[in-house]
Amino acid sequence: MAGNTFGTLFRFTTWGESHGPAIGVIVDGVPPRLPLAEPDIQQWLDKRRPGQSRYTTQRQEPDQVKILAGTFNGETTGTPISLQIDNVDQRSKDYRNIADRFRPGHADYTYWKKYGIRDYRGGGRASARETASRVAAGAVARKVLGPDIAIRGALVQIGPHPIDRATWDWAETERNPFWCPDAATAVRWADYLDGVRKAGSSAGAVIEVVASGVPAGLGEPVYDKLDGDLARAMMTINAVKAVEIGAGFATVALGGEENGDEMRMVDGKVKFLSNNAGGILGGISSGQDIVVRFAVKPTSSILKPMRTVDSEGNEVEIETHGRHDPCVGIRAVPVGEAMMACVLADHLLRYRAIGG
Amino acid sequence: MAGNTFGTLFRFTTWGESHGPAIGVIVDGVPPRLPLAEPDIQQWLDKRRPGQSRYTTQRQEPDQVKILAGTFNGETTGTPISLQIDNVDQRSKDYRNIADRFRPGHADYTYWKKYGIRDYRGGGRASARETASRVAAGAVARKVLGPDIAIRGALVQIGPHPIDRATWDWAETERNPFWCPDAATAVRWADYLDGVRKAGSSAGAVIEVVASGVPAGLGEPVYDKLDGDLARAMMTINAVKAVEIGAGFATVALGGEENGDEMRMVDGKVKFLSNNAGGILGGISSGQDIVVRFAVKPTSSILKPMRTVDSEGNEVEIETHGRHDPCVGIRAVPVGEAMMACVLADHLLRYRAIGG
Amino acid sequence: MAGNTFGTLFRFTTWGESHGPAIGVIVDGVPPRLPLAEPDIQQWLDKRRPGQSRYTTQRQEPDQVKILAGTFNGETTGTPISLQIDNVDQRSKDYRNIADRFRPGHADYTYWKKYGIRDYRGGGRASARETASRVAAGAVARKVLGPDIAIRGALVQIGPHPIDRATWDWAETERNPFWCPDAATAVRWADYLDGVRKAGSSAGAVIEVVASGVPAGLGEPVYDKLDGDLARAMMTINAVKAVEIGAGFATVALGGEENGDEMRMVDGKVKFLSNNAGGILGGISSGQDIVVRFAVKPTSSILKPMRTVDSEGNEVEIETHGRHDPCVGIRAVPVGEAMMACVLADHLLRYRAIGG
Amino acid sequence: MAGNTFGTLFRFTTWGESHGPAIGVIVDGVPPRLPLAEPDIQQWLDKRRPGQSRYTTQRQEPDQVKILAGTFNGETTGTPISLQIDNVDQRSKDYRNIADRFRPGHADYTYWKKYGIRDYRGGGRASARETASRVAAGAVARKVLGPDIAIRGALVQIGPHPIDRATWDWAETERNPFWCPDAATAVRWADYLDGVRKAGSSAGAVIEVVASGVPAGLGEPVYDKLDGDLARAMMTINAVKAVEIGAGFATVALGGEENGDEMRMVDGKVKFLSNNAGGILGGISSGQDIVVRFAVKPTSSILKPMRTVDSEGNEVEIETHGRHDPCVGIRAVPVGEAMMACVLADHLLRYRAIGG
Repeated sequence: MAGNTFGTLFRFTTWGESHGPAIGVIVDGVPPRLPLAEPDIQQWLDKRRPGQSRYTTQRQEPDQVKILAGTFNGETTGTPISLQIDNVDQRSKDYRNIADRFRPGHADYTYWKKYGIRDYRGGGRASARETASRVAAGAVARKVLGPDIAIRGALVQIGPHPIDRATWDWAETERNPFWCPDAATAVRWADYLDGVRKAGSSAGAVIEVVASGVPAGLGEPVYDKLDGDLARAMMTINAVKAVEIGAGFATVALGGEENGDEMRMVDGKVKFLSNNAGGILGGISSGQDIVVRFAVKPTSSILKPMRTVDSEGNEVEIETHGRHDPCVGIRAVPVGEAMMACVLADHLLRYRAIGG
Repeated sequence: MAGNTFGTLFRFTTWGESHGPAIGVIVDGVPPRLPLAEPDIQQWLDKRRPGQSRYTTQRQEPDQVKILAGTFNGETTGTPISLQIDNVDQRSKDYRNIADRFRPGHADYTYWKKYGIRDYRGGGRASARETASRVAAGAVARKVLGPDIAIRGALVQIGPHPIDRATWDWAETERNPFWCPDAATAVRWADYLDGVRKAGSSAGAVIEVVASGVPAGLGEPVYDKLDGDLARAMMTINAVKAVEIGAGFATVALGGEENGDEMRMVDGKVKFLSNNAGGILGGISSGQDIVVRFAVKPTSSILKPMRTVDSEGNEVEIETHGRHDPCVGIRAVPVGEAMMACVLADHLLRYRAIGG
Repeated sequence: MAGNTFGTLFRFTTWGESHGPAIGVIVDGVPPRLPLAEPDIQQWLDKRRPGQSRYTTQRQEPDQVKILAGTFNGETTGTPISLQIDNVDQRSKDYRNIADRFRPGHADYTYWKKYGIRDYRGGGRASARETASRVAAGAVARKVLGPDIAIRGALVQIGPHPIDRATWDWAETERNPFWCPDAATAVRWADYLDGVRKAGSSAGAVIEVVASGVPAGLGEPVYDKLDGDLARAMMTINAVKAVEIGAGFATVALGGEENGDEMRMVDGKVKFLSNNAGGILGGISSGQDIVVRFAVKPTSSILKPMRTVDSEGNEVEIETHGRHDPCVGIRAVPVGEAMMACVLADHLLRYRAIGG
Repeated sequence: MAGNTFGTLFRFTTWGESHGPAIGVIVDGVPPRLPLAEPDIQQWLDKRRPGQSRYTTQRQEPDQVKILAGTFNGETTGTPISLQIDNVDQRSKDYRNIADRFRPGHADYTYWKKYGIRDYRGGGRASARETASRVAAGAVARKVLGPDIAIRGALVQIGPHPIDRATWDWAETERNPFWCPDAATAVRWADYLDGVRKAGSSAGAVIEVVASGVPAGLGEPVYDKLDGDLARAMMTINAVKAVEIGAGFATVALGGEENGDEMRMVDGKVKFLSNNAGGILGGISSGQDIVVRFAVKPTSSILKPMRTVDSEGNEVEIETHGRHDPCVGIRAVPVGEAMMACVLADHLLRYRAIGG
């Protein structure tokens, strides 16, 4: 398979199944002498950790990270950083009924077709549990980026309900269980999701991740463009079906003169008058905020019965019990932030290589 | 930079500037003994070639491809295939006025910030002319995929005007200058684009690319997922700002039971009852049609004057004359098809490596 | 750094320091449904394990491997295999005196120059302890290669004393502590090494690794040639300073007609009359035995005092106590075998990708 | 195949067959604003060019290089550099008799086994003609390294005749047709090779390449070690069968105290008292001269008849006429220099990425 590695210079490799003894990530290419200790990583894992509200899975995982290699006296040494998280709350017996049945919308069927074998317990390798490793890698990436680059994410839509962007307040994202930047919408989402959960259904979401303070010059045309790598990064997150940069699909309906971000000089510096480009032109960062949005489909594991087939070719129905997020998109916020951090760290190192 | 290569096993590297003597592509990793001659490639280049209607640039490039290496007696040999296209209709003097001024929405500013030097003539390396190399690589990829996999593209929106999907007819895409699958909409688009062109403005577009006959099992979780690679592939095409797979952003508003594609047995084979997944589950192809859509922003080079700055830090205005596509998305159709072909060819070879 | 990964399709990444809590390896790209359990790996680690004779380090490491991911019910699943070995017998205080002094011939100086920080305990990441991870990866690679490909290694020289190749007996390599295929020489080496050890010195060695049953066709010209990858593989083993294929340096003194391996037909199959090529022509396996030899320099950590400098720029002397192999080349035999297995597994998968 | 690319950040891809219309190389990852024009490259190609003495092939190739992309106004732009050399003196009919017969020692047999098709004319892709592309890439690499790093090569052995290292004079390498640093030996080689040529035989050679002025810190442990990459680089050159770093195989017979290069302070700087390590410790450059030696086997295409088989499985004899180098190692000197330059350039950029 050899598909479990991401990045060129800042490069990480993840491993582990949902119900195996542990999951982990090797982060390679980290410059030496950066301060790094377990709490630096734990804070971001805590943000993603399940079981923190009734809107996410009730699986209780402390997600306690251990650094097994790559630091000395609290600093990175330039050698690979090995991070490990034990799985402690597996309930594999919940998954017996999916051992032979393919959940619609899930990877069950395609893993079985591709590999002829699958660890069905909790979704195995295809479980969103893998994203904890991404968050751990992202914590290291933030160290590479340094304090001047800020990466923040927010949920901007759940089901058919978008936020009101006019009332956007980053501080609000810390005050509700949805990372919602708009307090009024957060209240409505709570009601909406309670209904979804009671109905045994699930809901999708749109996440927006913004990186501020990114210098101009990151991105390697033409196939390693910054937006190309971001698109891949986000699309590989479980359940993501769409990615857009800046104004994204909305640019289509604009005239060229509306879409192009005009420039003026302010205090001797170039200032753009808008940011339809999402901070990327020709695949290279422009110095504006990098803005990425991605769509997470509704959780595929639901209580409602659905028609499917089994591995013997019988037509069957399936209801998925286990413990699932009614809106898996909520916990995708810290994951999206982490992937943004990793892509930027990789491109920062690549830019330095040619003198940037 | 080292960013001009795409793919792992089926791997191509492109080179060349808009106004240099030639452009080209090296396609490496092609299995031996596939029939390949220049007309096999030329047919796809002719589809993308500029100057074929009043809705695309009037630059006249015959785009005649030469095979310089990698075949013997009309068959591939397993060695790298070198394809070259001479540039014949450069008019570099048209670009004098952009030598020092940054066109809003274009890569001028970011190339200058990153490299401190740029070949401004025709956009240099950032020109959409590079996409001819992609189309040539895609023609080789189709040979790898064989005749049972069909890849077709269509324009499904120009500016604010989407097609009527109820009247979709693939045959129609060959009969109008827009690759529009809906005859009535094509007529409306012609009017609309005439207005855009006269106004010195430009329009965006949405392209949909569909691959049929793709076997289940292509895609390498978790970072080399098929959809991750497709997202990167499409996002690296000039002017693309968004990519979605299957129902994409629309999945967000669906309940889990609406989104999951149910399965039944038909004639002893698994049949999905819908295709919201766009043929990809868990990053692996399911055997359904692979469906990708991407947004192309309106052409940045327009006649209307825009506010910008120059490389000396002066505030200036710019009008771009040269010869430009009023809707660069039109010619992105064969480019999107080519990138789809290249991604699938790469993953087909990767799948074979593990016995697929 | 991002230099801790080896291979393209069969790809492994190692991590861990000599005196950290553990070391490990992630093996990615392994085809599914291969039987794999811990004893399959343990048998090869036991072969390399230290402390088994007075000719190797007295550090007592059980080197007990755990499989943390990638298998299900005793078979590989196609997902990354995570293997881990705890470090149990570190004596870091032995290394206090090298915290600031650079052992001649060791990586101390260069790590310090490159990274400005180093985990000096036991050599940190530069320790030969890392090679246990290679051996673990090699055990997985052998599963990929299957039972028809046999990989065996032997020590063919210690210090100035080569074996007598006329009496080569593979079975003998299992009967002496040197993997020596020549019983008489093994006896002489025992005497010689006792003298070396008593003198507080160390000795170099030459290892020969032979792979039999390798099909013709492995290797990807021109930069991923099989011999190029083998040369890199062996040269990256600690203390290796030279690599040769087949007759190697000895080919230089041969005439072309002596060097070229002539071919005849025997029982309807091509048979080579000699094997100066070491089984590789033009970077591709020919079906003959693959033969690689590499030189391991004498252990750099010795009791004899040597002149060096410290990190403050003072001229000092250094004697290295700790527990060291008087001839580190002995334990390089299973490591060389493992690297051969990994290179062949990678190229077998690559060959399959194009239909081989 | 996908094996025609070398390097990570400074990365080049070569293409072309011996008797195709042209050969070429794409050099990607070159930092911007380096002066680069065709004469900068031509000077090195002229050094490798065939037909310059009676000791090399009489094929007359001007090897005139063209820059097709990647520079603007005489400077690199950061975009891929495309270099092309036309083939002008093919005599394909000379090769008819090898169309179906496999030359012993040559890649004929293995290409046929692997690909089932081969361009036999002049050896096709397996011809040493490919090395012209390496020399062109090396010329660009030297620009990246800058004037303070000097890379020089010499022939130190032909057939059984080594040079006398006591009389080494770099200036001498420019005065004889062998790049021999020892004038007296050059005279003896001339006699020796005349005999070899008249006998219809061929001779091997050992090349030594030395890089001076390389800063400490280049090389990425543990699998991308500088010596690992150099070993691969040299081993992929046509006909190379062995590579050693520093004292190489000779270290085996040394005691640890003889082999370790001791250090003293001279003028406030670290000075090594010997260079058995060849300038590399733990895979990282130490600041000493980097010293690599490699063995080139005798040319496989010889006039003397040899026993072989044909593609139909018949036992036949073969004499190779065509125009061949009696000692192909002679022209390997500039090729070895080029590969050294490319490896160092790649690692210099990689080191810069982490702050080096």
